[in-house]
Amino acid sequence: MRVIFKVRPIGIIRSPYKSDGDAPRQGRFTMDISDIEVFPQYEEGLRGIEGYSHLIVLYWFDRARRDKLLAKPPHTDEELGVFATRSPNRPNPIGFCVVDLIERNGRNLKVSGLDALDGSPLIDIKPYSPAIDSITDAKVRY
Amino acid sequence: MRVIFKVRPIGIIRSPYKSDGDAPRQGRFTMDISDIEVFPQYEEGLRGIEGYSHLIVLYWFDRARRDKLLAKPPHTDEELGVFATRSPNRPNPIGFCVVDLIERNGRNLKVSGLDALDGSPLIDIKPYSPAIDSITDAKVRY
Repeated sequence: MRVIFKVRPIGIIRSPYKSDGDAPRQGRFTMDISDIEVFPQYEEGLRGIEGYSHLIVLYWFDRARRDKLLAKPPHTDEELGVFATRSPNRPNPIGFCVVDLIERNGRNLKVSGLDALDGSPLIDIKPYSPAIDSITDAKVRY
Repeated sequence: MRVIFKVRPIGIIRSPYKSDGDAPRQGRFTMDISDIEVFPQYEEGLRGIEGYSHLIVLYWFDRARRDKLLAKPPHTDEELGVFATRSPNRPNPIGFCVVDLIERNGRNLKVSGLDALDGSPLIDIKPYSPAIDSITDAKVRY
């Protein structure tokens, strides 16, 4: 499949994490606040978003490497395939976080639980639904 | 931000859903099996994936419309912004599903819980971690 799909940023993330060393391993374990600015032409897409306590945020790891297929996660000595890790370095460097929606102010969302670097391009927002997205008994070997 | 990011398919999804009408509203509520084929050049990225019971699958809604900002979800009469719905029609039509990993056979993964149409391009796989991805008390108004 020689197809290429084009992703256009729909907004930008402002966060306290200026470089790799600043970012938490996982955003969920922090109370840090990030601000998501959705660009004006996409604002209508936010209608009703304040009806959810949690959102799925997809963003682009714009400082990641796309040529890596292996990574060593912090909690194991094994080198794993990138698809078995949450490393930002991966063929399509798309970041995924579940965030708490604290406040909506027009096309700006204040959230916590996001681990994106400051200036990361936003590519999608979806509502988090515990009925389909929460698997409490999922098993993780590593 | 006039940047465009290029997403290259890393595999292809074979599913029982040949067209929109066949696909379940949410894959999680079915036991249907889908097969994910990862392309040979990315196989190394799967190392260790069998250590997880559940995976996050990102795929491209290649039959979706990108010019829609509103959608009417099935469970409400309100028209909501696409970022407040799981509609495939959205500016960057990236699908997200949490799936059960049933079996790995080389670069082929047998999964359940996926709602992708047959032939959908695979763009990323990440391990599902209940510690960061499961929010049991998330609220949904609609």
